[in-house]
Amino acid sequence: MLEERVASVHALIENKDWNAVRQSIITLPEPEIAELLFETDTPDRIVLFRLLPRDIATEVFAQLEGEQRNTLVNEMTQEETRRLLSELSPDDRADFLGELPGEVTQKLLNLLSPEDLRETRQILGYPPESVGRLMTPDYIAVRPHWTVAMALQHVRKKAKGSETIEVLYVVDDKWKLLDALDLRRFIMAEPETKVEEIMDHQFISLQATEDREAAVRMMERYDVAVLPVVDSVGTLLGIVTFDDVFDVAQEEATEDFHKGAAVAPLKGSYREASFFDLYRKRIGWLVILVFVNIFSGAAMANFEDVIAANVALVFFLPLLIDSSGNAGSQASTLMVRALATGEVKLSDWGKLLAKEVFISASLGLTMAAAVSVIGFFRAGPEIAITVALTMATVVVIGSIIGTALPFILSLFKLDPAAASAPLITSLADISGVIIYLSIATVILRELNL
Amino acid sequence: MLEERVASVHALIENKDWNAVRQSIITLPEPEIAELLFETDTPDRIVLFRLLPRDIATEVFAQLEGEQRNTLVNEMTQEETRRLLSELSPDDRADFLGELPGEVTQKLLNLLSPEDLRETRQILGYPPESVGRLMTPDYIAVRPHWTVAMALQHVRKKAKGSETIEVLYVVDDKWKLLDALDLRRFIMAEPETKVEEIMDHQFISLQATEDREAAVRMMERYDVAVLPVVDSVGTLLGIVTFDDVFDVAQEEATEDFHKGAAVAPLKGSYREASFFDLYRKRIGWLVILVFVNIFSGAAMANFEDVIAANVALVFFLPLLIDSSGNAGSQASTLMVRALATGEVKLSDWGKLLAKEVFISASLGLTMAAAVSVIGFFRAGPEIAITVALTMATVVVIGSIIGTALPFILSLFKLDPAAASAPLITSLADISGVIIYLSIATVILRELNL
Repeated sequence: MLEERVASVHALIENKDWNAVRQSIITLPEPEIAELLFETDTPDRIVLFRLLPRDIATEVFAQLEGEQRNTLVNEMTQEETRRLLSELSPDDRADFLGELPGEVTQKLLNLLSPEDLRETRQILGYPPESVGRLMTPDYIAVRPHWTVAMALQHVRKKAKGSETIEVLYVVDDKWKLLDALDLRRFIMAEPETKVEEIMDHQFISLQATEDREAAVRMMERYDVAVLPVVDSVGTLLGIVTFDDVFDVAQEEATEDFHKGAAVAPLKGSYREASFFDLYRKRIGWLVILVFVNIFSGAAMANFEDVIAANVALVFFLPLLIDSSGNAGSQASTLMVRALATGEVKLSDWGKLLAKEVFISASLGLTMAAAVSVIGFFRAGPEIAITVALTMATVVVIGSIIGTALPFILSLFKLDPAAASAPLITSLADISGVIIYLSIATVILRELNL
Repeated sequence: MLEERVASVHALIENKDWNAVRQSIITLPEPEIAELLFETDTPDRIVLFRLLPRDIATEVFAQLEGEQRNTLVNEMTQEETRRLLSELSPDDRADFLGELPGEVTQKLLNLLSPEDLRETRQILGYPPESVGRLMTPDYIAVRPHWTVAMALQHVRKKAKGSETIEVLYVVDDKWKLLDALDLRRFIMAEPETKVEEIMDHQFISLQATEDREAAVRMMERYDVAVLPVVDSVGTLLGIVTFDDVFDVAQEEATEDFHKGAAVAPLKGSYREASFFDLYRKRIGWLVILVFVNIFSGAAMANFEDVIAANVALVFFLPLLIDSSGNAGSQASTLMVRALATGEVKLSDWGKLLAKEVFISASLGLTMAAAVSVIGFFRAGPEIAITVALTMATVVVIGSIIGTALPFILSLFKLDPAAASAPLITSLADISGVIIYLSIATVILRELNL
């Protein structure tokens, strides 16, 4: 039903029936309007944007991606830009300005009112990817000595300009945060009750300088949709709302997915990413891994005689090194994700490594059984024994590498997600080649072949 | 500071100073109490749980993981269980009962009041992983002909029993959902205004039978913390709140991480997973991949003569097949994640595949240049040419497999996340072996070696 309405507005835009568009587009939700805007080409795009009532235009703008916002602003007059900037909420405004090149940000900051400028500079003053960058100062604060009736009167006055009315923040004269109370408590209390009587002094808060992932963890753990942000002495600076935190959680998960496949994190969307950007994010690890893989070849060169005498050994090489890499990738992915969600801590390494040795030994023995049957029928008993023994060993070694590497990286304050499947595979290959050919040398010599 | 308080309560528990525990534990947030509970062993655990005020005990129970809830219930009397079940919110109750073995669920359902039983049965009637399973019937509904003052009076009465007061739902006599309105609108409106005058008839809703991922997508897109759930004719059944949706988003991301490394989704935590569970979730794909990898060996057997005559070819084998697999894993991961977040649609396949061919050709040429230098110094010009040509080709082929497979799986209604790095690596290996040895055969024959 929504799709039909979008399609009908789309048709009106195509026909440039702007009067009809003006009336029908405002019945659509903002994300749909944002999409329509970028399905429309210049010069009609800016015409469409100008048709929108101001509050909707501001919301739509906030929904756009970085590139799209720049495109749109380039088509606006300076006066339109000034108005838009003043109407954006402080967090959206800082988000937009923070992504622009320095000199453009500077030019646009000049268009702000002194009050907006102060707010924006404060948010932009925190490091990228910090909690401070996510916060907005649009919250409702009340005082402990007020009555509930006064507080509710204050809510009525401030509701329009606040990001949320769900939680009210109690502060002292120095704006130190004393409590965070659900609006529900005020609604259920008697009007003449003092705010301090309904306070419980139990609240959780974030520091503005913390990593934004702290907001994700805290919101997940405590199930609250709004978190207060304070400075080092507890002064209330702003609030962080669930919608921004939700986006951060998804972005961080996407980054970890990409790192897990040895892709440097793409900023912005994969669909919109340029050719050069994708090349740049992928080539780094690929070339590093080429050099890592050279060690496998070098190791093999030492076993040239064994290989030349038993070419059939080579047929099992991809199978064995892949199996080691696969088991290792499983182990590293389980570990990296468990570390990312906070389910596992650095101190758990001993217990988890011990568990992994047992599990991988069982996996290795199962796979050795499968492969020994194939080996026997394809290349005789000596090769079958060699391949089975190697399989069991390399699966355990690969798994140990996969489990240990994320911990080792964390220990050196590096990102455990760098223990990607391709890296683990390459490391497992080097050890796999050496183990395989060493076992082959011994067994085939012992059996006098 | 919180950690210190937790540590001091922990010490009191160790000393079994139950009176002091009773007073201090209630100052801690529920997630911390839940952790303390499972750091305490039987029989003290149930003593500790019994100390908690009833509303806190219920919240703590809802925070526990599946296994932990079972353990705790096994230590309770039937009367305690009955009381706990009646106090849990309907979504938490259904979540707990839904995870138990059928006969235990049946036994516990018998302890419910008729009203709770009806609610619980309704939620449990929806398929696992559906929106219906996430919903709770504890919302506040108002009528269009009421005044704002009546609605607010109703909110005051119902606030305690409702999951949220942030949004009020307007329904007709048949409980058909007419609108979803922010409490803010009511607070800012004149008391004598009719509810229908502040309605805008713009709301989004979920169907109870939809996949729970639909809730994640909708909440992310529309930035709302509570979504109404309706049946096929629009009757309001319940609401879904951001905290449950947040958990679903994280669980789904974890599942996709695991699938990406060829691990079948683990239910519950990695840390708590049993040895056998981890074995079972990992062995399936590992054994399948052993059989896939046999094709690489079989393909190689056809080139036995070329290999025997040029053993140095083998030294470059791990490097070449790994590079193909690495580029392919990058491509598949980018694609699988973009499909999962909805950034890319099935219909985009043509454009994205074409882009990938260009990018992978550039990656392949860069890597070929790197490897030809090494090849030249290690094995002479013929091998260098062979290896460089192969590198460029297999990187492109690996990337095409990586990009195409998630689309092909989606087309057949399979999960694109099954295009895991290990599967792509194994497929890239088979094609890589054939391409490498075919190129080698031609080049080494042409050069009369």
